[in-house]
Amino acid sequence: MTELVIVRHGESTANRDNTYTGWSDVPLTAVGIQQAHHAGKRLREAGLQFGAVHTSVLKRAIVTANIILDEIDQSWLPESKSWRLNERHYGALRGQNKDETRRLYGKAQVQQWRRSFYTVPPLLAPAELSNDRRYTKYGPAVEPRGESLKMAYDRIMPYWIDTIAPRLLDGQNQLIVAHGSTLRALIKYLEQISDTGIDGVEVANGVPIQYHLDDQLRVIGKDEL
Amino acid sequence: MTELVIVRHGESTANRDNTYTGWSDVPLTAVGIQQAHHAGKRLREAGLQFGAVHTSVLKRAIVTANIILDEIDQSWLPESKSWRLNERHYGALRGQNKDETRRLYGKAQVQQWRRSFYTVPPLLAPAELSNDRRYTKYGPAVEPRGESLKMAYDRIMPYWIDTIAPRLLDGQNQLIVAHGSTLRALIKYLEQISDTGIDGVEVANGVPIQYHLDDQLRVIGKDEL
Repeated sequence: MTELVIVRHGESTANRDNTYTGWSDVPLTAVGIQQAHHAGKRLREAGLQFGAVHTSVLKRAIVTANIILDEIDQSWLPESKSWRLNERHYGALRGQNKDETRRLYGKAQVQQWRRSFYTVPPLLAPAELSNDRRYTKYGPAVEPRGESLKMAYDRIMPYWIDTIAPRLLDGQNQLIVAHGSTLRALIKYLEQISDTGIDGVEVANGVPIQYHLDDQLRVIGKDEL
Repeated sequence: MTELVIVRHGESTANRDNTYTGWSDVPLTAVGIQQAHHAGKRLREAGLQFGAVHTSVLKRAIVTANIILDEIDQSWLPESKSWRLNERHYGALRGQNKDETRRLYGKAQVQQWRRSFYTVPPLLAPAELSNDRRYTKYGPAVEPRGESLKMAYDRIMPYWIDTIAPRLLDGQNQLIVAHGSTLRALIKYLEQISDTGIDGVEVANGVPIQYHLDDQLRVIGKDEL
C-alpha cells in the first residue's frame, strides 16, 4: 500500500477577497500561513514519510508546501514545481469579485463557469497574457487565455502519469500541494467521478486528504487529516 | 556574461553555540532567519533573475534558500537539493564546542582540523552513522565518517560539473545556498586558490557573493552584495 496526500494551499489574498485568481501569483494571508502550519502538524501526527513533494509554480502552493515540509522535518525532500499543477486559468474573470460576477452575469452563468467540467470562461485577449519567463521558457504554447476544468485536467494528467504515478508504483509516498481545481481534477481521476458528479466536489484550504492506494494505484481508502 | 551567486546559510544554532556541526541537521536561529531575509533583499536590489537554485539536504541551507526566493519573488524556480552540497562532515568533532576542543587538543591541532586542506578530523565509529534515509537511498557509500576539506571538494565537484556548470554555460544565472566549507571549496576552484592559500578564506553567514563569469566560466569580477 502506498500513500498519496493532497493538500490545497492555505487561504490566499484572493480567497479572502473572494476574487477569481487562476494563474495570478497571489500570496498567502496570515490565516493561510496558519492553515499551512496546521496541515503540517496533522501530517507530522500521521507520521508519514514521503519520497517527494509536488507543487505548482504559484507561490501560494509553494510556500504552503515549504511550511508543511518544515513542520514534518522533511525539508530535504525533492521538490518538483510544475506549471501543470497550476490552478485552472480563469481567463478574463481573473481578479473579478465572485459576487460581482453573479450580479453582472447571473447566478446560473457563474455556477456554470465555476462548476461545469466543460465550460470555458471568457478568454483573455492575447495582449493580456503575462509572458512570464516561468512559462515562456517552454515556448509560446503553455500559457492559456482561459481554461475549462476539462482543459486543466488534460494538462495535469501528463504530470501525474510521467512524474507522480511511477514513484507511487515504486512504493514511495507522494505529497501534492496544489490548488482547488487542480485537486478536483485529480480527485475526479482517482475516484472515477463523472463529468457531472465533479460539480459538487469542494476542497478546503489546508486540509490534507490521504489516499491509500493499492499496487495498481486504485483507491482502497481515503482519510481527511 | 553569466552571474553565479553563492550564499552561506544564516546563523544556525550550532554557529551561535560555537559547536562543530557538519551533517547534523540544525535549524536557523532568529538572527539567521533575519540574515536570510537581508540576503534576499540585497539580491532583490541587485535585480538578479536566476534559472535555478541549488542547496544541500540540510535545513539551515534549504530554509535560507526559501526565504531568499520569497524575497526576490522567484519561489517558482527549480530547486535542487543535493547531499553533495552538504557541509564538510566533521566526524567525531560533531557537536563539540570549538573552544573546548582547543583546550583538549591544543590550538595548533584544532587550527589544522579546521583550516588545512588535507587533514581529516577524528572519524565517527561506524555505529555512529545517522543511517538517515536521505543518504541511505543512495546506498551505504554516501554518508562519510568524517571529511577533510579535500574530501568534501572531491564530492562537490561532480555536482558543479554535471548540474551547475552546464546551466551557466547555457547563459542561466545560478544561485547556490550552502555551507562555509562547501563554499570555500567552490571559491578555491573558481579563484584557483592553492591548497595552503584556502586556509585564510572565510565566508560570512547570509552575505551573497556574486561572480561574473565569462563564456568559459572564468571569473572576470566578484562583488559582495
